[in-house]
Amino acid sequence: MDKFHLISPLDFRYMRSDLADKAIAYLSEEAKIKHEIEVEVAYVRALSYFGICKKELYKEIQKAGKKITAELICDEESKTGHETKALVNVLSTNVSSEAKKFIHLGLTSCDVLDTANALRFKRYTEKVLLPEAKSLEKLLIKLAIQNKKTFQIGRTHGQHAEPITFGFFLAQYVSRLGQRILAIENASSNLKGKISGAVGAYNALSLFCNDPLKLEAKTLSYLGLKPSESSTQILPREYFADLVHALLSTLGVIANLADDMRHLQRSEIGEVAEHFGSTQVGSSAMPHKRNPITFENIKSIWKAFSPRILTVYMDQISEHQRDLTNSASERFLPEMLFACTYAIRQMRKALEKLYVDEKAMLNNLSKSSQKTISEALYVLLALQGLENAHEHVRRIAFNLQKGSLIDAALKDKELLPYIKKIPQAKLKYLQNPKNYLGLAEKKTERICKNWEKILGF
Amino acid sequence: MDKFHLISPLDFRYMRSDLADKAIAYLSEEAKIKHEIEVEVAYVRALSYFGICKKELYKEIQKAGKKITAELICDEESKTGHETKALVNVLSTNVSSEAKKFIHLGLTSCDVLDTANALRFKRYTEKVLLPEAKSLEKLLIKLAIQNKKTFQIGRTHGQHAEPITFGFFLAQYVSRLGQRILAIENASSNLKGKISGAVGAYNALSLFCNDPLKLEAKTLSYLGLKPSESSTQILPREYFADLVHALLSTLGVIANLADDMRHLQRSEIGEVAEHFGSTQVGSSAMPHKRNPITFENIKSIWKAFSPRILTVYMDQISEHQRDLTNSASERFLPEMLFACTYAIRQMRKALEKLYVDEKAMLNNLSKSSQKTISEALYVLLALQGLENAHEHVRRIAFNLQKGSLIDAALKDKELLPYIKKIPQAKLKYLQNPKNYLGLAEKKTERICKNWEKILGF
Amino acid sequence: MDKFHLISPLDFRYMRSDLADKAIAYLSEEAKIKHEIEVEVAYVRALSYFGICKKELYKEIQKAGKKITAELICDEESKTGHETKALVNVLSTNVSSEAKKFIHLGLTSCDVLDTANALRFKRYTEKVLLPEAKSLEKLLIKLAIQNKKTFQIGRTHGQHAEPITFGFFLAQYVSRLGQRILAIENASSNLKGKISGAVGAYNALSLFCNDPLKLEAKTLSYLGLKPSESSTQILPREYFADLVHALLSTLGVIANLADDMRHLQRSEIGEVAEHFGSTQVGSSAMPHKRNPITFENIKSIWKAFSPRILTVYMDQISEHQRDLTNSASERFLPEMLFACTYAIRQMRKALEKLYVDEKAMLNNLSKSSQKTISEALYVLLALQGLENAHEHVRRIAFNLQKGSLIDAALKDKELLPYIKKIPQAKLKYLQNPKNYLGLAEKKTERICKNWEKILGF
Amino acid sequence: MDKFHLISPLDFRYMRSDLADKAIAYLSEEAKIKHEIEVEVAYVRALSYFGICKKELYKEIQKAGKKITAELICDEESKTGHETKALVNVLSTNVSSEAKKFIHLGLTSCDVLDTANALRFKRYTEKVLLPEAKSLEKLLIKLAIQNKKTFQIGRTHGQHAEPITFGFFLAQYVSRLGQRILAIENASSNLKGKISGAVGAYNALSLFCNDPLKLEAKTLSYLGLKPSESSTQILPREYFADLVHALLSTLGVIANLADDMRHLQRSEIGEVAEHFGSTQVGSSAMPHKRNPITFENIKSIWKAFSPRILTVYMDQISEHQRDLTNSASERFLPEMLFACTYAIRQMRKALEKLYVDEKAMLNNLSKSSQKTISEALYVLLALQGLENAHEHVRRIAFNLQKGSLIDAALKDKELLPYIKKIPQAKLKYLQNPKNYLGLAEKKTERICKNWEKILGF
Repeated sequence: MDKFHLISPLDFRYMRSDLADKAIAYLSEEAKIKHEIEVEVAYVRALSYFGICKKELYKEIQKAGKKITAELICDEESKTGHETKALVNVLSTNVSSEAKKFIHLGLTSCDVLDTANALRFKRYTEKVLLPEAKSLEKLLIKLAIQNKKTFQIGRTHGQHAEPITFGFFLAQYVSRLGQRILAIENASSNLKGKISGAVGAYNALSLFCNDPLKLEAKTLSYLGLKPSESSTQILPREYFADLVHALLSTLGVIANLADDMRHLQRSEIGEVAEHFGSTQVGSSAMPHKRNPITFENIKSIWKAFSPRILTVYMDQISEHQRDLTNSASERFLPEMLFACTYAIRQMRKALEKLYVDEKAMLNNLSKSSQKTISEALYVLLALQGLENAHEHVRRIAFNLQKGSLIDAALKDKELLPYIKKIPQAKLKYLQNPKNYLGLAEKKTERICKNWEKILGF
Repeated sequence: MDKFHLISPLDFRYMRSDLADKAIAYLSEEAKIKHEIEVEVAYVRALSYFGICKKELYKEIQKAGKKITAELICDEESKTGHETKALVNVLSTNVSSEAKKFIHLGLTSCDVLDTANALRFKRYTEKVLLPEAKSLEKLLIKLAIQNKKTFQIGRTHGQHAEPITFGFFLAQYVSRLGQRILAIENASSNLKGKISGAVGAYNALSLFCNDPLKLEAKTLSYLGLKPSESSTQILPREYFADLVHALLSTLGVIANLADDMRHLQRSEIGEVAEHFGSTQVGSSAMPHKRNPITFENIKSIWKAFSPRILTVYMDQISEHQRDLTNSASERFLPEMLFACTYAIRQMRKALEKLYVDEKAMLNNLSKSSQKTISEALYVLLALQGLENAHEHVRRIAFNLQKGSLIDAALKDKELLPYIKKIPQAKLKYLQNPKNYLGLAEKKTERICKNWEKILGF
Repeated sequence: MDKFHLISPLDFRYMRSDLADKAIAYLSEEAKIKHEIEVEVAYVRALSYFGICKKELYKEIQKAGKKITAELICDEESKTGHETKALVNVLSTNVSSEAKKFIHLGLTSCDVLDTANALRFKRYTEKVLLPEAKSLEKLLIKLAIQNKKTFQIGRTHGQHAEPITFGFFLAQYVSRLGQRILAIENASSNLKGKISGAVGAYNALSLFCNDPLKLEAKTLSYLGLKPSESSTQILPREYFADLVHALLSTLGVIANLADDMRHLQRSEIGEVAEHFGSTQVGSSAMPHKRNPITFENIKSIWKAFSPRILTVYMDQISEHQRDLTNSASERFLPEMLFACTYAIRQMRKALEKLYVDEKAMLNNLSKSSQKTISEALYVLLALQGLENAHEHVRRIAFNLQKGSLIDAALKDKELLPYIKKIPQAKLKYLQNPKNYLGLAEKKTERICKNWEKILGF
Repeated sequence: MDKFHLISPLDFRYMRSDLADKAIAYLSEEAKIKHEIEVEVAYVRALSYFGICKKELYKEIQKAGKKITAELICDEESKTGHETKALVNVLSTNVSSEAKKFIHLGLTSCDVLDTANALRFKRYTEKVLLPEAKSLEKLLIKLAIQNKKTFQIGRTHGQHAEPITFGFFLAQYVSRLGQRILAIENASSNLKGKISGAVGAYNALSLFCNDPLKLEAKTLSYLGLKPSESSTQILPREYFADLVHALLSTLGVIANLADDMRHLQRSEIGEVAEHFGSTQVGSSAMPHKRNPITFENIKSIWKAFSPRILTVYMDQISEHQRDLTNSASERFLPEMLFACTYAIRQMRKALEKLYVDEKAMLNNLSKSSQKTISEALYVLLALQGLENAHEHVRRIAFNLQKGSLIDAALKDKELLPYIKKIPQAKLKYLQNPKNYLGLAEKKTERICKNWEKILGF
């Protein structure tokens, strides 16, 4: 297969990163088959545990399973037109007659498919995605602490509002990403398996097993899974829907950070910059360009994947004991797991070499210094008893052309007596916006410590 | 306002139910204002608790708040062009000068808006939506238990598969809805408030309060809320996103049940029927029609609302300390809460009078009785040592024109010796599909008991 | 009905504008009923045209129809549980026995419902939405022409790129909006009706009419509609889907413009500003704030409505001759028509009073003047025969700390000979970015003239 | 590259069909590069046409372009981090110094990328997708004509309604698919290119060309494209959005047909069946199963792709002269083109071997024959002057337990005199539902002929 013949940008372009091996181990077609074999083997092992077949048989099947390649199964599928039957056939060819009869005995394809998917999604999430997310979280904490005192103007509606620190800005993301990590952990650890047969009522298993519920639980315990309380031919789809929601809402947080960074990198703002290699080209037209391409790429991944939650919602609906209209749509689930990991990884790489321009931040802050203390002024005046202090200050700020807000306020006869009453200790807030920082630093530390503790950093 | 001038079908058509009063109390514009006033009052109460203002003032403001109507605020908003400032102005007009200065002191609009929304969504969820959902769950349990022995053919791909009971079919929904109820409870109880000022750094609060974090916590505690660990001008949107996901994934479960019922009501299947009043008309063309209109309506509500998760995902992204591009989009959140409740209520009403035709179920089951035991046959043959038992039986079933599968199998020379080896005790499974029920009944009881216990029925 | 009891923000908040009357006339529940009556009357008129009933009867029914209120039908619906039957009953009550028998004779509800919806959506689009869109287009043309020479820095990736004019920036939207207006016109004029009975095969109509296709065409011709080539019980949903796509893709263009304006209004950029009334409040916390709230509102409307295309796509699917799972979802279509109009109107209002700061534009342009000519430099050097001119210039621009790009290039020994070869006439492009404008002005004029001509301004 | 290491189901699973070669030729990474080279060559050809460079140079570059492999460019991209610059570099290495300087001279990457995408999407649509769609349309016409007299019961709400023919049922899809084919043709032929430079104002091109608009038009004319009226750094995204809407609304029509077929294949209905190969396995549990897997697969493709319209809508928004947040998301556009073709192909394959069970259709029709004439009865009674004929018949049908509707009506004293008045010639409609077919056959022929003519079959 020529990789340039691929039409999926995921496999061609985004899989080139060092994530590729890990992703292939859980999310590829090969991985799917390997996990299915693992389920088939665990099932026979459970059969042997309950004395339904001999212990040697499960060992024999396990051994055979290790030799089976995806290609063999693919060839067989072209005959049967049924992927699970193909797997069962290939597995059967490689074992004794006695073993053969217990492979997949009484199971339906979805016992294997759904359980294998739950298994590999859980493993991938725990072994690849979550470590990546935690690695990003750690970096965010580091950057937040480093910049806990780095002055920055807070912005609302794109307008200068009130001073914060760059660390405080980042701490917001420490908290939001931290909470999403817990949400992903919850959803992942809640993935369940099923070994309940063609309509979920254990009909066939009851033919040779006294307690099929124990057989199901035992099989799944070998895989580190628990049985779903209910199932039909398939697992209820809420398990997957919850995981995808956790992933996409995480992607939303990452995309928000990417947008923030993009705008902080605007030519006129210039507070941060994405690192550019010395041979890297920003534009084929304009040699001077250095663009926030990684942040743009992250936002774009969000655009590509967030709508896919609708596919997952549609797949919740499966008529009666199942209707298979999820046959194609759910095959795209691994793409969602990978895309989320990829975006997290891209964000970490962009932040690792992020250029933070403290001077530019200070410069931007100072540009609005005369206006950004308007809140402090109105609050202090109100506390001195000035009625409608907000309206007074709004009017002065609205008409202010140049000069300082305080000077304009001092020229206002109505305000003057109240300004004079403001306690000496409070005047510093009006004199310099740097003093008007509230708990920016303290909150930054608090949030970072909390997540270091929760995540065991 | 003439109700026939409305363009929203929610307000005009779906609000006519007995849910209207409850919905209005939490989800209407009036409710929004009432909850905002409650937040403003709680804030002054907290100020008084910390000695920043006198206790009488909070009582005075509380009293004033009770007199304020939505109309007054609406009129004021037409002047200020700012809804929260309008509220503050109207509230201020009704109190003493001393009280006036503490109203909203140092707050930003979103401290009030976001907290009030969290508050009313939480209350609505707990007091209206969850009781409705539990009431439906109770009914589902009752129906499942009633029908735990009612034979039904299980269907996969719309094809007859293996026998289940109608109660077992319903038990799947008992389990899925039960789990969604817990998911909604989780998301709802995780809704948070914020009292952290214009950029989330408590800048203004720090002007007059030594520990703004305590002030925030105290204010919110009066409302039964906890503070978000981080905030900017606004709450992080994940709290709302989690709630909406819980609601929409619940709606997905309800829609799945509605689709199942619609198809069970098909003329050719006829296993259930929606109740029709004696004067109700099914079709303006065809006098004989009785349609599954409530189940259709539920599915349609799902179509109308599930895509709106995307709006919520988009609203997770708010540039820097907030960008207000959620100004219109989040005003539609109450519609989602109502729509979910409405669909749940509709389902309960449809199920309360559901006509279950046990005869039709048995009739449909018996139609495929000769084929549906094919699984039992192959498993039993495999256990007797027949190699490729599945393939043998598949071939016979594929070629079967009429007569019974067993008869055809008995005529097959290869199979005959193995059939004879099947233990006597197992033959009943092949003789009558009613015997091939697996754990349908047991599982029904188990699931129902579990949810009765969890939900305290 | 108390308007503060509404939960729909559309009816409560966004309908307050001067669009309300026009919207109510086509999109409200009352409008729906009025248009349905119009269809019923047109049908009897067609019956009379073909001599199936007497001419007086259609006049009688028409007269009766004018007296019927939405309230009467609503009351009747509470009995029949069927909205079209309710309408037929009420209409019947008000006419003679002879007239009664021809009302709705042989029709199915959807003949009336679907046709009435097509009719009112078409009228609303032509009489309200398109005039609004054209009015916005006219304003955009005016602004583009006014600013065809107003220098502005072009931005890609949020980075300064190359000079354009503000008029050229706007001309892009003149072209895009113009094309969307044509798309809406196409989709609207392609809305069709149907009078083909319960399953679309004209079964009942054939009982008393020799050529039901002519009866259908005649009925619809009275309404200014054409029949759909095919129908079942319902119209194929592609007609509506095309209209909604035209509307939402228009909304996307408007949202793009809103985002552009929001960012041009950033404190650091400050090239435009939304008008603020003298009593308007920007922030309840910060008296100095003037925010781009209208542009934010427009973007937010886009967020709220663009996902709803999925509902329309889902409603394309209706099992067999129809399944009614569009019963609730399609009732929200009028909301989409209104929301699109509202966003267009908001944009026009915001642009009418837009403050354009030419000085700030020039100032921003000049900030990057030394870099933005890098493209001109590389092209001119390449034309003089310098190999790898792009790479040469990229390296110089990358290392440039201060001073001009030209000065740095002149200091480069490799480049110097080529720079000297650049024809005198071309040097102006390197000396001043204002000269490096390409066809900005010419293209602006060309686009504007084209749309003035097409739309007949 | 190991194909089993792919995570994209499109490339691994769905590309295995005979569509693969055609898809690779337009939609793969290699195809992207080949089309980009074609644009670069066309540009130099246009330069030579206007005498800006010598004619030999374009031939030289064209020749060089033919030797370039995707791999070479991929390697170069790993250095430049910029895909278009990589292409320019590789192309430059293979030509003379003189040629080198004209390659990409004054262009921006998107001139090449966007134009190449428009080009290959247009070609793919015209050469692969539309022929497939027409091939399906032809088959639908054939099936419709074959079955124009095949009785079938029409169904609304899943309930038996009135008689139609299976051909009439199919004719609906002939009409809907036909109209979508025209919509795709429109959108495809409206795809445009751009050669307007870094911000769309032809800045650099103006350095060496007197009429850049002619240069643009000439370049594009070599590719069979026209220039977009306006562009920034990029093409307006409405061209792609319109194409994707045309594709997805086509997919919706196909999905509707797939759902209809799935339900017609239900065990209880059994009117059609998907062909099963003699070695094909329906279920790994139940040897007797033959499932509508192709129809399910088609519906599932629709679930997977319809939500992606939202990505396209989001990509309409690109800040200022472009923001590159479409960098990843638009790379998935080729997947949408392929998926739509794949679904169309699957539908054709399923229909080619569709088993139509005329007996079952007749049998289902006759089951409701006593009720389905209720409409005919009420219409005929109304025409004889019976008031409230619909209500009379509704009541009788509602209470009918067994026996015929006519017999029950005849027993009704009120109705009897009116029944007697029904003209002899009309009685056949009441006697046999087969007579109550309306224009089913005629309409089928009419629709089929119309599309044969339009599409030139």
